[in-house]
Amino acid sequence: MTYCFEPVGVIRSPFREKFGIPRQPSLAASARSRLELLPPYDHPDTVRGLAAFSHVWIQFVFHDTAQRGWTPLVRPPRLGGNARIGVFASRATHRPNPIGLSLVELLDIDTRGGVALILGGADLMDGTPVLDIKPYISFVESRPDARCGFVDGPPPCLTVTWSEHAASQAAGLGLTSGEETLINEVLAQDPRPAYQDDPEREYGVTLFNYNIRFRIADNTAQVIEILHATQN
Amino acid sequence: MTYCFEPVGVIRSPFREKFGIPRQPSLAASARSRLELLPPYDHPDTVRGLAAFSHVWIQFVFHDTAQRGWTPLVRPPRLGGNARIGVFASRATHRPNPIGLSLVELLDIDTRGGVALILGGADLMDGTPVLDIKPYISFVESRPDARCGFVDGPPPCLTVTWSEHAASQAAGLGLTSGEETLINEVLAQDPRPAYQDDPEREYGVTLFNYNIRFRIADNTAQVIEILHATQN
Repeated sequence: MTYCFEPVGVIRSPFREKFGIPRQPSLAASARSRLELLPPYDHPDTVRGLAAFSHVWIQFVFHDTAQRGWTPLVRPPRLGGNARIGVFASRATHRPNPIGLSLVELLDIDTRGGVALILGGADLMDGTPVLDIKPYISFVESRPDARCGFVDGPPPCLTVTWSEHAASQAAGLGLTSGEETLINEVLAQDPRPAYQDDPEREYGVTLFNYNIRFRIADNTAQVIEILHATQN
Repeated sequence: MTYCFEPVGVIRSPFREKFGIPRQPSLAASARSRLELLPPYDHPDTVRGLAAFSHVWIQFVFHDTAQRGWTPLVRPPRLGGNARIGVFASRATHRPNPIGLSLVELLDIDTRGGVALILGGADLMDGTPVLDIKPYISFVESRPDARCGFVDGPPPCLTVTWSEHAASQAAGLGLTSGEETLINEVLAQDPRPAYQDDPEREYGVTLFNYNIRFRIADNTAQVIEILHATQN
């Protein structure tokens, strides 16, 4: 038996590639995304009453990695990239059915010319196809005492600094404080693969239309340069 | 763009029809279900480490009602069946993509001859196709202070009584105390459609292999007779 679904909406977000996306929603609280409903779902009736909920579930497709298939065992970054656990004991993207689930803040609903939900804290890549939207029901879904295995809280954060050059570029490019905050939040999560720890290695993460170049050493991420994403 | 998925497992549960299934998981805490993984997912590797989590998400297909399509506005039972809200502001089964989401207790994992998860509190119909299983992550997904619109807590419960005839039948049929408790929990939720309030009307709900006949009056549900489901 096969079940086929068409997206009801699409995500527009500052995350233009998988690298750098926080590994859970809410870890980059400053991220602002738009969920644009597609026809015939883009009528205000479909979201009537939704503004009374502060949080919503987004069920979506891991479209960027879906074609890479799945493996029974995965290595979660949280375990240092060494220990292997079952794919159903993880939130890894490479799943038998590449369906994601994210709890996000519902900040606003824009009904000028279609319907768009303004989302806070989403860990969703630009272009993500959305299959469903559901209100969060706290009395059922809030389980503060649940045992959660190896996921016992947010991961530790890095300190983030900016080189003089990068800070000057940020001012010249007119980065908003919101954009700077999101860059700080993303780098504080340590986006490197778990097994990499080379203080000389330069990384680039694409956020908005920028390629943010950085290094990580001594639990500190330093922004060293800001390029336009097309220069990546 | 269309995305197609095949089930990774199937639910075996005491709920043999949609009528009577609690409208949220955890409302019938005594419900015990088995999620049987299908090949090639039925290897213990796929669930390695999952037992460290007390709760799991089940993403599934509303297979029983999927072909009935969707409407932009729905009438949630919680609002008395009169007020209409948007389908994305509800957890109604008639959705553009009929994908369900349930948080359930993970009680045990049975790896004798395949893999089955033993679930508590599930609101899932027997035969439900499961698309994905994910661990619950409390630090992200537990939001006790979320605003939840009209869903401000569990609905009020009915008192449940048994007629002398029904109690005697229960003893004669050898109903276990767990089965009796589940019958009580299901009837306490008031499974009637919101707009029906006829104290003389007899209803039947199929649980396990029984058809439980009952009436509701004065906030009390009375079990009046227990039939075999085939006699329904």
